[in-house]
Amino acid sequence: MTRQRSAPLLLTPGPLTTAVATRQAMLADWGSRDEAFITLTARVRARLTEMVGGRDSHVCVPLQGSGTFVVEATLGTLVPRDGKTLVLVNGAYGRRMANILERLGRRHETLETAEDTPPDAEAVAARLASDPAITHVAAVHCETTSGILNPIAPIAAAVAVQGRRLIVDSMSAFGGIPLDLRRVPCEAVVASSNKCLEGVPGLAFSIVRRDALAASAGNAHSISLDLHDQWRAMEGNGQWRFTPPTQVLAALDQALVLLDEEGGVAARHARYAANCRVLVNGLRRLGFETLLPDALQAPIIVTVHMPADPAFRFDAFYDGLRALGFVIYPGKLTKAPSFRIGCIGAVFPKDMEAVVAAIGSVIVGLGVASGAPAR
Amino acid sequence: MTRQRSAPLLLTPGPLTTAVATRQAMLADWGSRDEAFITLTARVRARLTEMVGGRDSHVCVPLQGSGTFVVEATLGTLVPRDGKTLVLVNGAYGRRMANILERLGRRHETLETAEDTPPDAEAVAARLASDPAITHVAAVHCETTSGILNPIAPIAAAVAVQGRRLIVDSMSAFGGIPLDLRRVPCEAVVASSNKCLEGVPGLAFSIVRRDALAASAGNAHSISLDLHDQWRAMEGNGQWRFTPPTQVLAALDQALVLLDEEGGVAARHARYAANCRVLVNGLRRLGFETLLPDALQAPIIVTVHMPADPAFRFDAFYDGLRALGFVIYPGKLTKAPSFRIGCIGAVFPKDMEAVVAAIGSVIVGLGVASGAPAR
Repeated sequence: MTRQRSAPLLLTPGPLTTAVATRQAMLADWGSRDEAFITLTARVRARLTEMVGGRDSHVCVPLQGSGTFVVEATLGTLVPRDGKTLVLVNGAYGRRMANILERLGRRHETLETAEDTPPDAEAVAARLASDPAITHVAAVHCETTSGILNPIAPIAAAVAVQGRRLIVDSMSAFGGIPLDLRRVPCEAVVASSNKCLEGVPGLAFSIVRRDALAASAGNAHSISLDLHDQWRAMEGNGQWRFTPPTQVLAALDQALVLLDEEGGVAARHARYAANCRVLVNGLRRLGFETLLPDALQAPIIVTVHMPADPAFRFDAFYDGLRALGFVIYPGKLTKAPSFRIGCIGAVFPKDMEAVVAAIGSVIVGLGVASGAPAR
Repeated sequence: MTRQRSAPLLLTPGPLTTAVATRQAMLADWGSRDEAFITLTARVRARLTEMVGGRDSHVCVPLQGSGTFVVEATLGTLVPRDGKTLVLVNGAYGRRMANILERLGRRHETLETAEDTPPDAEAVAARLASDPAITHVAAVHCETTSGILNPIAPIAAAVAVQGRRLIVDSMSAFGGIPLDLRRVPCEAVVASSNKCLEGVPGLAFSIVRRDALAASAGNAHSISLDLHDQWRAMEGNGQWRFTPPTQVLAALDQALVLLDEEGGVAARHARYAANCRVLVNGLRRLGFETLLPDALQAPIIVTVHMPADPAFRFDAFYDGLRALGFVIYPGKLTKAPSFRIGCIGAVFPKDMEAVVAAIGSVIVGLGVASGAPAR
């Protein structure tokens, strides 16, 4: 049965529901230049780098702000001013990388596929072969617009074969979908504290190949978003250049302990996959249709077609679920009306059963006969 | 007497010691696009604008990241690409604004005074009169490098008379030193959550004249740091463009309640002044000398000359105080060795008495006869 919760469960792409222990880690104050905080910063950086097998090749550079801040910082720092970037676009976050490069005045092109279609590694290879001016490729790991899992491994191989450099926005995949930089060569992987790592929002980070970062001095368009300077300062004295979000980092440190206790990324991926299965199966039982076939669906966030029944109104649906203790997310597709429900955070299959039950009761209350979309 | 605390008291320019209630406000998760968080954002923005009398003229634009991020965002957004800024420099934070403009490739000049000397409004007026190309003046309210209070009111008057525009970095003064934009005309005032407002670090904000912000579209060098776009998006649907630090904002909201309960900015200023008096008098009794005469000392952070006694070693002094439960701050003067002790945060005159006693006992332990500096 559905249940009323004191705080709603956040079934969104983040900020999401975190563990109580993670939030309790924010109950202390930290001196940002004190040894205790320097130790905390070093521990988190090392743990994040190891998580993707980057210890021998990469460094973790955390930065204040949201994920987009670090995507911009990574592009602005790593792509030389005379570089050219091929951006793979199949949703809003790929588009955003192109917009960032546009604002920075750095040359770029896009390779676009539909929102329900992953980029094709062979098409990437062909584009690179035909344009030797391209120095970098930028791709999104899980495109949160749709929830699609993009094939980073074959793309990385194609980019590496051509001697170009791959920058991956892994915002909503990092920590929830296994990635090993020893097998999947990436110049940089960007993610944030508040998605599959199940920390709170306020910082993000880039796992960058050390030699690339060392060669990037002077590229950045911004002082605040200069990843090279941030790294140099941190290597120098272990401190952040500018005031860090101390409590947010402490929460991330605790969230990483919980990730280890769960069994690491593979175990977390398995839980998210179970969440996703319960959710998708439940939605289908109610007549709803997901945007993506199961083979393309990352277990992160599910895009659902809006029902055709004229009795369905999204605002009322949202408010009904909110009243039952579930916060869902509006759609972001450009082509079709939709909404989204997240599978990530400190949520479990029983929570997904509960939200499916809640959805069933809310649509009955709205007089909606079925979740089936228009044909 | 001194005392051992479970958590150290942070006597720094921030992050600083916050109230327990402020930290407890971080124990909930928030959906960043949910109505409850939209309401929270609006309440904090309105309260911050009202605090400086800006309701009829200015808007508050919060941004993820540290104070420097928003200083950069404000300069990058408000100063047109063909503008020219006169930066008043008497410490590291004035210098940083010049460095930001340099990185942005925007024309600027500095008007420098020594670290213990405030900028002179008449000198500003003379410089503006002699250079009509200057469109903006950038000044620091309390320069944390030394703790000096810069005379913002006469500077603002001089800038306004000449028809130029003033951008104030009020990072370590906002909420602790009264400012009324109806009497002190500023184009923008920048501050952060984690100084005199006694929130936790992770966001900062700019209180910007509405007409200037409206006219600033397309100026910014960055998407993440585009204050105009951040404002337009927030005015549109009440939401942040990119994932906000939800718990940090909730903590700031609670911290603002505590500020009201204390009696507002005037009452907080009185407490900080009392803290500062106890600290400075106590240090002087121990032979220490402050950098600044009392008339120039803001009640925010006190710069203390390093003692001449060769038995004094800063690292041992720091560690000794740390062991007794007090975190102080290294110096940042370019000219003279020094250290700093903050007066701000959820700390009270009795805490300052305790740190003075601790300093006395630590220097005795080090075999330091007196805090007196070299002559």
